Amino acid sequence: MRFVDLIEKKAEGFSLSEEEIQDMISGYVEGSVPDYQMSAMCMAILQRGMSDEETADLTMAMMHSGDTVDLSDLPGIKVDKHSTGGVGDTTTLAVAPLVAACGGTVAKMSGRGLGHTGGTLDKLESVPGTSVEIGLEEFKEIVRKNGAAVIGQSGNLVPADKKIYALRDVTATVRSIPLIASSIMSKKLASGADAIVLDVKTGSGAFMRTVEEAEKLARLMVSIGNLTGRRVRALITDMNQPLGTAVGNALEFREAVQLLSGMVPETDPLYQVCMLLGTHMMLLGNIAADEREARARLKAAIADGSGLRVLKNMIALQHGDSSYVDPEKIEELVRVRRKIDITAKTDGFVTAMNAENIGTAAQMLGAGRATKEDVIDPAVGLVMKVRCGDAVRTGDTLCTMYVNDETNLADSIDLFLQAVTISENRQAVPPMIYKVITEEDL
Amino acid sequence: MRFVDLIEKKAEGFSLSEEEIQDMISGYVEGSVPDYQMSAMCMAILQRGMSDEETADLTMAMMHSGDTVDLSDLPGIKVDKHSTGGVGDTTTLAVAPLVAACGGTVAKMSGRGLGHTGGTLDKLESVPGTSVEIGLEEFKEIVRKNGAAVIGQSGNLVPADKKIYALRDVTATVRSIPLIASSIMSKKLASGADAIVLDVKTGSGAFMRTVEEAEKLARLMVSIGNLTGRRVRALITDMNQPLGTAVGNALEFREAVQLLSGMVPETDPLYQVCMLLGTHMMLLGNIAADEREARARLKAAIADGSGLRVLKNMIALQHGDSSYVDPEKIEELVRVRRKIDITAKTDGFVTAMNAENIGTAAQMLGAGRATKEDVIDPAVGLVMKVRCGDAVRTGDTLCTMYVNDETNLADSIDLFLQAVTISENRQAVPPMIYKVITEEDL
Repeated sequence: MRFVDLIEKKAEGFSLSEEEIQDMISGYVEGSVPDYQMSAMCMAILQRGMSDEETADLTMAMMHSGDTVDLSDLPGIKVDKHSTGGVGDTTTLAVAPLVAACGGTVAKMSGRGLGHTGGTLDKLESVPGTSVEIGLEEFKEIVRKNGAAVIGQSGNLVPADKKIYALRDVTATVRSIPLIASSIMSKKLASGADAIVLDVKTGSGAFMRTVEEAEKLARLMVSIGNLTGRRVRALITDMNQPLGTAVGNALEFREAVQLLSGMVPETDPLYQVCMLLGTHMMLLGNIAADEREARARLKAAIADGSGLRVLKNMIALQHGDSSYVDPEKIEELVRVRRKIDITAKTDGFVTAMNAENIGTAAQMLGAGRATKEDVIDPAVGLVMKVRCGDAVRTGDTLCTMYVNDETNLADSIDLFLQAVTISENRQAVPPMIYKVITEEDL
Repeated sequence: MRFVDLIEKKAEGFSLSEEEIQDMISGYVEGSVPDYQMSAMCMAILQRGMSDEETADLTMAMMHSGDTVDLSDLPGIKVDKHSTGGVGDTTTLAVAPLVAACGGTVAKMSGRGLGHTGGTLDKLESVPGTSVEIGLEEFKEIVRKNGAAVIGQSGNLVPADKKIYALRDVTATVRSIPLIASSIMSKKLASGADAIVLDVKTGSGAFMRTVEEAEKLARLMVSIGNLTGRRVRALITDMNQPLGTAVGNALEFREAVQLLSGMVPETDPLYQVCMLLGTHMMLLGNIAADEREARARLKAAIADGSGLRVLKNMIALQHGDSSYVDPEKIEELVRVRRKIDITAKTDGFVTAMNAENIGTAAQMLGAGRATKEDVIDPAVGLVMKVRCGDAVRTGDTLCTMYVNDETNLADSIDLFLQAVTISENRQAVPPMIYKVITEEDL
């Protein structure tokens, strides 16, 4: 079978077989399928779609394109979580400790931030000494002792994804839902998870602009889990404003510590999403009988400080200075040359806080990378003082910027102010959580 | 504007502007747009289509990617014809002389055969000495003297087409109707024609399998003509069997000579298509008032031998031995080591003669090229003794094969026999000519 015939098959809307998909991935990784053929195939997939079975076959073929992590010698069901990329989303640093405190096993591999989105590894590294480059055996040992650890991808995991993603990025094929789903799921499967709770973001700061698109992606990933023998659930949550109030690495780490210390109110979006993620991780991990029990135990792990202790131990076991895991001491990590309050220029109601632009505003202060080579400043970023739906008056503080390097400050302020829409009339605030998709919804 | 944004625009179904299309073509020819982006764009065009205006812009951008031929110093309206590729289609060698004999100006650039289709240049070269590589000034001089000349493309005509076609061939994007139309029309426009009659083939041996597809392509090319200031008409003709009875280079040249000598009956498909092509070439060339007049004068040019004389002069002016342009002398050019009659294995009616397979059977005898480097034997090929609709009895000759090299003879015979369907019951024969599309049909 020549690869051009496979492209034609997909271009005409037919399904590819498991073997054809395996040949495609191995051919592309080995180089016998050139970029110009793979890009035509990606465009055909974008236009014609893939069935759930094809996408599951693609996920498995990508997963097997490189090394895979074997976590089977760790006790219990290894539960992972994944977010499709948000702004101010520090859920991993709060939920992984909480679920571990409740008896779960969270051996998590995370990524770094790029563009307007943050990355858990960067937030962890804002605590002095913390290492995210830890060998597999030590990583497992930490999980055995502590129930939770978060490191970077080790080894040659899913090389097919790296190569295909780079190609999609320059050929306008990033938006293909089967390609997004197989990219996410192949990495989760390769990193050894038995069960995965996905947080699919929708709204202005998310890749899936509409709830319908987000639901398509969520259903497809749950279906892939079903077809590949993993337990998968997906939340669809709002990204029409940043999830937490903090955007910036140490600032977000601080917010996770605050949440684990009981300082974040239950009405807060970050709190709500953390509780929902934790609940479904506990259910998939078979460590709670139902939602009510899971939620009660998560709350208890906040109240009795056991969640915060897991985070503290995790930092210590990952060679970090765990004394910073403390709501007072952590203030030292967000000390900057200047704090600048950005104020409202008019009276009204906050009706929109464009998460992408706010993420970019923080990036411009040095909190994120425009390219992979950029160095980030862990202390800088911004903390929002208002949320969508709030009433404001002229002069009220909208956010506090934490600034060291002022090179792009003016542009950052402009972008932040553009991102915040203040309207005369109050408008309905979109719900924080739209839906939970489980296997039963397929 | 980054090229990836143009791909996205087309991938989402929007139209590209004239300037964007120009940037695309110049970028691809210069190398700033890499193959992997252009192949994604071609797939997006295949899937999303292009408007008539976009396709006209693409045609003009491709035309201007290299040299163009200026025929404006030749008298009258320069009329060209083009067929989308058929088997046994020797119309150019009959029609160009006939139209010139009636006062038309036919300065034609033709191509070579590849795969199952033949090429006019190869048929011309089957006459000893004939050159198709003639400089532009000499070419024009021949046309001035004789009214007609047929040569190969000279200079660097439409380099964009060569590059895009090679890419389409390996990325399953050959079938895009806007890409086919712009490929054909850019070459016709670059070679200096004022008016073009297109013969769009449909059926088993043609690229457009259905009349509907053929009509889409025909309308689009007429529309491109309209938008670029050229007079264009398109015939839609049948290719469910080879057009003429001869398939092979000297054999087809002989059939053209026979037609010009009045030896081909008026009921013959080749005769019918030649008359229709000639009629519309004369109308577009403003050398006949109406179809009836054009047809009568074409018949007269056969009857009085003036068409044959133009062909003879053309061969002489192109340095060939014009004594072969004679129904008797030409037999010397088709002398082979063996002539083999292929006979019917059953009684019945010929209901199908797959033109592609018959073309390939002739190619296997040495009449055509599998790759561009192959050398062809001008004398070999086959002559069909039956046509679709004919009744045959076991043992009747279906075709005579003209054979020198017997290496692939057995396979060629097998393929020919597979190509001919003999059924118990008589079936309706598809019409030879389906439609003529003119500017008034847009």
